Amino acid sequence: MKNKNIETKKECVTINSPNGEITGPKGFMASGITCGIKQSGRKDMALIVSEIPASIAAVFTTNKMAAPPVVLSKSHASNGVASAIIINSGNANACTGKQGMDDAQAMARLTAETLGVNTEDVIVASTGIIGVPLPMKTIKLGIEEAAKALSFDSMAGLDAAEAILTTDTFKKEAGIEVHYSDENEGFIADRGIIKIGGMAKGSGMIEPNMATMLAFITTDAEIEPKLLDKMLKRAVAVSFNSITVDGDTSTNDMVAIMANGASGFTVSEENSSFFQQALNTICIELAQLIVKDGEGATKLIEIEVMGARSNSEAKQVAKSIANSNLVKTAFFGQDANWGRVVCAAGYSSAEVHQSKIDVFYGDQKLVENGCPIGYDNEKVDAILKEKEIKVLVDLKLGSGNARVWTCDFSYDYVKINAEYHT
Amino acid sequence: MKNKNIETKKECVTINSPNGEITGPKGFMASGITCGIKQSGRKDMALIVSEIPASIAAVFTTNKMAAPPVVLSKSHASNGVASAIIINSGNANACTGKQGMDDAQAMARLTAETLGVNTEDVIVASTGIIGVPLPMKTIKLGIEEAAKALSFDSMAGLDAAEAILTTDTFKKEAGIEVHYSDENEGFIADRGIIKIGGMAKGSGMIEPNMATMLAFITTDAEIEPKLLDKMLKRAVAVSFNSITVDGDTSTNDMVAIMANGASGFTVSEENSSFFQQALNTICIELAQLIVKDGEGATKLIEIEVMGARSNSEAKQVAKSIANSNLVKTAFFGQDANWGRVVCAAGYSSAEVHQSKIDVFYGDQKLVENGCPIGYDNEKVDAILKEKEIKVLVDLKLGSGNARVWTCDFSYDYVKINAEYHT
Repeated sequence: MKNKNIETKKECVTINSPNGEITGPKGFMASGITCGIKQSGRKDMALIVSEIPASIAAVFTTNKMAAPPVVLSKSHASNGVASAIIINSGNANACTGKQGMDDAQAMARLTAETLGVNTEDVIVASTGIIGVPLPMKTIKLGIEEAAKALSFDSMAGLDAAEAILTTDTFKKEAGIEVHYSDENEGFIADRGIIKIGGMAKGSGMIEPNMATMLAFITTDAEIEPKLLDKMLKRAVAVSFNSITVDGDTSTNDMVAIMANGASGFTVSEENSSFFQQALNTICIELAQLIVKDGEGATKLIEIEVMGARSNSEAKQVAKSIANSNLVKTAFFGQDANWGRVVCAAGYSSAEVHQSKIDVFYGDQKLVENGCPIGYDNEKVDAILKEKEIKVLVDLKLGSGNARVWTCDFSYDYVKINAEYHT
Repeated sequence: MKNKNIETKKECVTINSPNGEITGPKGFMASGITCGIKQSGRKDMALIVSEIPASIAAVFTTNKMAAPPVVLSKSHASNGVASAIIINSGNANACTGKQGMDDAQAMARLTAETLGVNTEDVIVASTGIIGVPLPMKTIKLGIEEAAKALSFDSMAGLDAAEAILTTDTFKKEAGIEVHYSDENEGFIADRGIIKIGGMAKGSGMIEPNMATMLAFITTDAEIEPKLLDKMLKRAVAVSFNSITVDGDTSTNDMVAIMANGASGFTVSEENSSFFQQALNTICIELAQLIVKDGEGATKLIEIEVMGARSNSEAKQVAKSIANSNLVKTAFFGQDANWGRVVCAAGYSSAEVHQSKIDVFYGDQKLVENGCPIGYDNEKVDAILKEKEIKVLVDLKLGSGNARVWTCDFSYDYVKINAEYHT
């Protein structure tokens, strides 16, 4: 039951935090170091630690080839408590068989021993090349160094955000503050401030259902694990599971959130919707950053579908359009090829009537009732030159709607993926 | 009930015909002319006519935005008899609303009047740009000219094959002869020769379920429409519905076969399996030609999946791999990135166990029980340099298997599709 009074009060405000780091919320330390997995010498190990055991919730890849760190972390997250997240980049520890599971367990154990916490309270994530065993001597030394480098400082959060990247071209962070307050006879009294910080990596292979994508979120709110899990799943549905770069989903993806209660403010079922909005905002921001950094991407494309028979059918249509290589190359070419949008809507499994569909690019209507209408070429061309483009498809069959984000498809996508050698 | 005696006799032979044209089988005339729809001045109208009314069977796009010619031809094919197929390229007559349906009907009626046959016995197909009404005056004159140009000659078949192309870079034809004979006390007596000829167009947007793809097949066998329909569906399943270029399916696709009985030889349920094999061969050949001419394609990739729980799950896994942009760019880059193959197998909806999967490129095993094995780099590199590459995935879960064909993914795919302007 939502407490609407609290949620809609104008005193409840969220502020996008200039300090988006995962070390923004109270009680979280982090580090990002070069341990030597990547031949490039770039940072390749990150550690996030909560001073006090935190509630944990996490969502994992649905790929049946889930890598050992995913299998292990799913088990560790299931008890609802975590103290640390250890992440390496440069090697995904995927397709590594029994050795891979032993190595993931060793990463958790070594981290726990170094920090003096329970092994089951350590979450492990890996990203990078597939099919090569982790260099465990390097990993062991790295964990010790990462623990030494731990700091509450914002720089430490930035280092961690850098250390989880692979083919990404920039760090991805977002932060928000939620101010809860009461108005009492004209006086406004703070009830509490909670912070949420997040970091992510993506680039290529990003489809819904968690693809070569890692995101870690911290908050100093007090939230019991079941509620945290429910809120994370809701936020992931409208953010990370609503983006697509090339339709592939990977073996290693996860989104995890730790809530340590250090702010002293408790988020409960009754006052959860405000926190939910803030969490959605953070997740959508991180998800959009991932799409913007899609391999070779030059544009962020939002596909909104309305008027579907249901929200899930709206999402099917939106994803069908967002995953179409023909649609994506047309946006790269800045061409108003609405035919490809209509065609992609037609081959999704959702109900679509060709005599009803309308298509808009930005505020310009291009298609009405399935046929093109005389639109203003100059205005449409101007929209297509923008870095961010909104496509709206109205199926006029019901009240289902959905939004997904994708990027355009350029020569550089092919270049990056054809020249990336195993 | 199959008559195995006839089917397996060594005297039943098929011969790949050097004359693959649709005018190869007896009693079929064709023409291919420039009527003026394409601004380039290239051929843009084809006509196929059977001297005598023929049995017809056809398979159409499943896209819900099916174009007017598809809707009309579905209705015309349903009576099982056809005399002619009229095809224009350069304009798809799709997303054209009521006008589009009037125009498709007019195309059938004008063709019927010119040839002196029933309007319902004319099949209409269109391919090209979307959302622009057909230039009906041009079409009318074109139909008259195409009828005048009709000929039994092989050149006429070649002209027709050329006239249905859009962005294709070469004509696609295949032909086969089936010799039925009896051995009687050491003497071999011919029972009959039937011919099958086919032509197709594809290029881009080719996914299973008939995508921007047209194929027309003629045969002089006598076959009743129901059996013809059953055999066409079987052949399409293992050929045109087992290829993919970019996963998009279009508004206009169809595969149609006419059987006019001019050879005097009847194919019935009892002796159908030999004809089925020949039809499958023709369809697979045409389908592979379409993939080879995929936009920007440099390689033909065969993905075979065995050991699935069922044939349909095998096809799901094969298509998941064949549609992966990451797999396709890796083949373009000639990189042995088996990880992308394993990953794509993992996100299909079929049952897959990561501890069981084996992957072969050509005769080289790269992955055993989900883990890479020490393979011969030089041998694998040599395989990856070939123009045709076979990938075999063994799931070791059951006896289901499937084969699909795709192409690699090059810069030119992006170039062609980004620079194609509406």
